[in-house]
Amino acid sequence: MAVAYRYLWECSRFYRRKFEEAGLGPDSVHSVDDLPKIPLTHREEWLEDQEANPPWGTFSPLRDEDWLERGWMFFSTSGTTAKSPRVFRHTTFDRDIWGYLGARGLHSMGIRNGDLAILCFSYGTSVGFWSMHYALHHMGVPLISGGGANTERRAMFIQNYRPTVLMCTPSYVLYMGRKMEALGISPRESSIRLICASGEPGACVPATKKRVEELWGAEIHDHFGCTEVAMPPLGYPCSHLVKRKDKPVDSHLMEDVYIPEALDPQTYQPVPEGQPGVLVVSNLYSEAQPILRYVMGDWIAISTEPCECGRTHARAVGGLRGRNDKLIKIRGLLFFPAAIEDAIRSLPEVGDEFRVELDHVGDMDQVKVTIEPSPQTAEISDRERRAKVVEALKGTLGLRVDLEVVPYGSLPRSKFKSDRLTDRRPKLFNPHGE
Amino acid sequence: MAVAYRYLWECSRFYRRKFEEAGLGPDSVHSVDDLPKIPLTHREEWLEDQEANPPWGTFSPLRDEDWLERGWMFFSTSGTTAKSPRVFRHTTFDRDIWGYLGARGLHSMGIRNGDLAILCFSYGTSVGFWSMHYALHHMGVPLISGGGANTERRAMFIQNYRPTVLMCTPSYVLYMGRKMEALGISPRESSIRLICASGEPGACVPATKKRVEELWGAEIHDHFGCTEVAMPPLGYPCSHLVKRKDKPVDSHLMEDVYIPEALDPQTYQPVPEGQPGVLVVSNLYSEAQPILRYVMGDWIAISTEPCECGRTHARAVGGLRGRNDKLIKIRGLLFFPAAIEDAIRSLPEVGDEFRVELDHVGDMDQVKVTIEPSPQTAEISDRERRAKVVEALKGTLGLRVDLEVVPYGSLPRSKFKSDRLTDRRPKLFNPHGE
Repeated sequence: MAVAYRYLWECSRFYRRKFEEAGLGPDSVHSVDDLPKIPLTHREEWLEDQEANPPWGTFSPLRDEDWLERGWMFFSTSGTTAKSPRVFRHTTFDRDIWGYLGARGLHSMGIRNGDLAILCFSYGTSVGFWSMHYALHHMGVPLISGGGANTERRAMFIQNYRPTVLMCTPSYVLYMGRKMEALGISPRESSIRLICASGEPGACVPATKKRVEELWGAEIHDHFGCTEVAMPPLGYPCSHLVKRKDKPVDSHLMEDVYIPEALDPQTYQPVPEGQPGVLVVSNLYSEAQPILRYVMGDWIAISTEPCECGRTHARAVGGLRGRNDKLIKIRGLLFFPAAIEDAIRSLPEVGDEFRVELDHVGDMDQVKVTIEPSPQTAEISDRERRAKVVEALKGTLGLRVDLEVVPYGSLPRSKFKSDRLTDRRPKLFNPHGE
Repeated sequence: MAVAYRYLWECSRFYRRKFEEAGLGPDSVHSVDDLPKIPLTHREEWLEDQEANPPWGTFSPLRDEDWLERGWMFFSTSGTTAKSPRVFRHTTFDRDIWGYLGARGLHSMGIRNGDLAILCFSYGTSVGFWSMHYALHHMGVPLISGGGANTERRAMFIQNYRPTVLMCTPSYVLYMGRKMEALGISPRESSIRLICASGEPGACVPATKKRVEELWGAEIHDHFGCTEVAMPPLGYPCSHLVKRKDKPVDSHLMEDVYIPEALDPQTYQPVPEGQPGVLVVSNLYSEAQPILRYVMGDWIAISTEPCECGRTHARAVGGLRGRNDKLIKIRGLLFFPAAIEDAIRSLPEVGDEFRVELDHVGDMDQVKVTIEPSPQTAEISDRERRAKVVEALKGTLGLRVDLEVVPYGSLPRSKFKSDRLTDRRPKLFNPHGE
């Protein structure tokens, strides 16, 4: 902690300015106990810094000449919110650490020598799956790169070469499984025994997890991090946590290299253990990208209760629950999109794809849900299906929704990250104020 | 040589059988002088072996358990000729060697610390660009992965982050440059100073090389190998060879780890130095994929004359000239497709894309060439252009062709490897017999 602080003080113009503004000096931080003195960093500050100082910003302590001397790769966010994506340069030192820490996460899930992995992602500049790629290298676990290949070719790779581990987004794992079924290949009978999913909360959404496990006859594990601060996994379940069916899916947190805090979103004071708070993370190990008290923004409940697997690091109870800024309020009730996903996918009458549209008409929020029938429940009439689903959603979400049922296959298929919720209501209220 | 032979004798069922059939024993090969005793291996033998022993064949000396213990990645051919692609498993040992040998090639071209590379390929299971990726890692040269990104996003990466080295196929480098021009971005004024092209002979085709160099204001270097036997470059030019404009573009050959032979395609006896022969290669260094006397099949002329750069390895004069099985005979004249490409692209009146169609009508080969006008020569009338091009092709190819001129932009754009020649003639003759 003292070293990371001093490194940023000396080498990051961005952090030096923030520290000085907070009245801190070069020797103000000696240990984790000094954490509360350190100002928080919000996503917007970083964005402004990079736009004011293109292309790299003044955030990273890495000097240009060092990157060009011992550089590795360049990563970026998808760049939908700004005119250019936010970018992050990492070094060979970072690559070695990523490989080691990433391997720790994959080992915790139960990946071992003897496994063969197939990575179904596009090998662009997103962090997540590159981190798995190099973690597998560190472990000596061979892999098949699915970059550029279509789902048919990836299915052929699975049939012919029998990989045991599949790495992709939760959206893609459902899409791919259904596509294989349509091609006459059973995902359940395939060689895949373990799925490592990243990019979306799906693997921690109980109903999605259950669907994937039934479709593939395999365990699904969530691997979460964030481009800004946690390139190898910040959170990953052990096989013990994934196998229990009666409780939420927790994730272990890599506490020796990341310091996670759960804070109140208004006061930014710590919430009691086990209570949900907004996740703030410090990264203590990176050469190019150390960062202290970054407001990652996802809701998290941290528990230090020992896990039955023997790991002593804290856990995120139920994984991550979505970003604070994605929390939505419908008729006075607060929801994360993942909660709606969970409610819909827990209904066997409903297919994998769905759409939720929110409108404000008169004084009332209108919720319209569009679903497809699941092909396994063809014997039910449309009227019966509609009644069952409306009733069940009212029971689980506490909302009466307008339901539209469209033919199977007509909703768009999400292959990478999903975006199934459209909120057209005027932004009249702050969902977090009362 | 003795070690590679003994390793294959002990561990490769495929080679053991071939050696025994040739009357060789475990101690029959002591040095390079024993090379002529070793039987040749043709592509078809490998294909048959893999189809008979799916999925890996009996070719590689690598045991399944070793791959699963210290595996790296899986590579494949594109699989257009067989029901499944031919596949190659490599180990962490191979990865280290690839990195080192690949770096030697890139260093020879003039890539150094201080450079930043952008790789525009899909990061699938093809060998070529992965080899560059890990070679850059070995050198500490940072890179931007262009996997999954479209040309607009790649152009944005070039504009914002100023990479100095571009890696892609020769087809794509022309496509990308024109696309950038259409977007109002000048490739000539971009940060790219060096292009490393692979996958097609383009960088050694003088007219294509000249076009690329003028379009980009950058050197273009050919990086050639082959999935079966030469994963890091077998051939690569030094900056001295690329800069000279008056002679063909030679490539250095990595003679200490590959043994290249130029043989007569009928007798498989060595041709005299400097004469064109069919390329046969032995790979002496790989753990997973050593191979002796593989008929790579490209035409090559080998020269041991010292290069002015000081490198003492032999050179491929004019690079590779195409595969023996792609040699075509038109009205009694033998051509490689690259010769046609060279003739067409040397005409300033013609755009980058073209199509060649061969038919046999009556007793006569018909050659139809479809071109687009180059946008830089809009002042010439269509009739004038047609006359100029027909005349010039008659002069360089020695053939009268039917010429069709279609509007600029109407021929399909090749983004990966090109396939611009269609031969619909009945297979009546062996082009190599007289």
